[in-house]
Amino acid sequence: MPTIRLTLAYEGTDFVGWQRQRNGLSVQEVLETALHKVTGQPVACRAAGRTDSGVHALGQVVTFRLGATTPDAATAGGAEAPQSPGRPVSLRALVHGTNYHLPSAIRVLEAQLVADEFDARFSASGKLYRYQLWNAPTESPLHVRTHWHIIARLDLAAMHAAAQALVGHHDFRAFRAASCERLTTDRTIRRIDVSAQGPYPAPVHIDVEATAFLRNMVRIIAGTLVYVGRGKLSAADVAALLRSGDRTRAGPTAPAHGLILWRVDYGPRDGV
Amino acid sequence: MPTIRLTLAYEGTDFVGWQRQRNGLSVQEVLETALHKVTGQPVACRAAGRTDSGVHALGQVVTFRLGATTPDAATAGGAEAPQSPGRPVSLRALVHGTNYHLPSAIRVLEAQLVADEFDARFSASGKLYRYQLWNAPTESPLHVRTHWHIIARLDLAAMHAAAQALVGHHDFRAFRAASCERLTTDRTIRRIDVSAQGPYPAPVHIDVEATAFLRNMVRIIAGTLVYVGRGKLSAADVAALLRSGDRTRAGPTAPAHGLILWRVDYGPRDGV
Repeated sequence: MPTIRLTLAYEGTDFVGWQRQRNGLSVQEVLETALHKVTGQPVACRAAGRTDSGVHALGQVVTFRLGATTPDAATAGGAEAPQSPGRPVSLRALVHGTNYHLPSAIRVLEAQLVADEFDARFSASGKLYRYQLWNAPTESPLHVRTHWHIIARLDLAAMHAAAQALVGHHDFRAFRAASCERLTTDRTIRRIDVSAQGPYPAPVHIDVEATAFLRNMVRIIAGTLVYVGRGKLSAADVAALLRSGDRTRAGPTAPAHGLILWRVDYGPRDGV
Repeated sequence: MPTIRLTLAYEGTDFVGWQRQRNGLSVQEVLETALHKVTGQPVACRAAGRTDSGVHALGQVVTFRLGATTPDAATAGGAEAPQSPGRPVSLRALVHGTNYHLPSAIRVLEAQLVADEFDARFSASGKLYRYQLWNAPTESPLHVRTHWHIIARLDLAAMHAAAQALVGHHDFRAFRAASCERLTTDRTIRRIDVSAQGPYPAPVHIDVEATAFLRNMVRIIAGTLVYVGRGKLSAADVAALLRSGDRTRAGPTAPAHGLILWRVDYGPRDGV
């Protein structure tokens, strides 16, 4: 029973999120259906991050177990092999064959054979989320699906400075959704960088790297930092609301479409 | 007859380019139809750059003349005023009213009243085009509409170094489309920057700033630099092909969907 690790990118606009839901199409359902077609057997995927409805991914990682896989076997066109259950399928076919069956909004970037102990979620040592803003007087057709539009010119230096109060090991209960069910709310943020991609009007990136996240944590951080950038909150306010643990003192939850699960790390990692 | 200057952004995917064509929908046709609805009079727009089919814009500039415009007059809802020809219309209504009638792929970012001598094309002192690459093993759903996908890992330092041979005043006949009808092929490139937006796999930007451009010039430069990044051409080859004026020695014309007319400059300007 080999364990396979896939790296995935998706544009989350038309999905209810990673996880299967009754109310719409999930990335998980679409991916598992495509993998079933390629491997000839039902598979169950586990993802590193349960991205919410509308959230995108560039480096989502999922794992699943397979009956009989030949890693990189010379099965030219493994995806075209007869539809027998559990037939051998190469890693190459897992990339290209699966992409053939996926809608263009989802792409398998890579397939690897991993140790059976490897688990997409629990083996992860950290994740990088990027929250994207389009800071301009008017909406841009080139950014509308992947950037939150903020009209007011943001003070990015103030946002970056205020964000540094969140870096380190803290109780982030002030930065989680009401629906978040985690028992422990301590998390470690390794890095937050707020950077303009050019002079106003321009995209702005908020990179948040942490060992693990609470539900909506990055989106509440982004909403809070936008309040800082607009002068509605100070750096001292952000530090105080972190200490207070009071969600009602934080900024709004930024919309899903600006968020991208950029990368998942396994094992130790330094820098970006 | 006030002259109006609009700044436009568009996703060029579904258009035959800026200029009206018989074979499909142009940005010009769609914009002029929307402006007619808002102003109550037919208008003819001139654009700073005739972007080709599939090319995008973030800072396209167009000008047109209007019968009777009240700049920023307090006509709340100028767009909702009775449909009388040549009615007064505020600059604010020109932005929001026109956007109301435009498809979401085109947006008016700004409207300004300018001197009658101002001409979007001939008054421009320079333009910045950005060519976007997605340098990764597999296509990304988040980049597929606006980035050229290059699988082979590019040597970006070599690309940037080779590009510097093109900076300055040169005869760029080796970097123009066969269909280009300009009599003079001397142009001045002020700056070319090749920059990765992160470690591989990542987007790569090629910024080309010049006083004016020949047809397909940026796309041929991008295609040539990608050849450099893949080791098919050296910096010396690029310098030699510029001197030779021989289009057949340059790289391929990079696809339209990676190109964005980023900004048009009027008057003197330093830096980005």
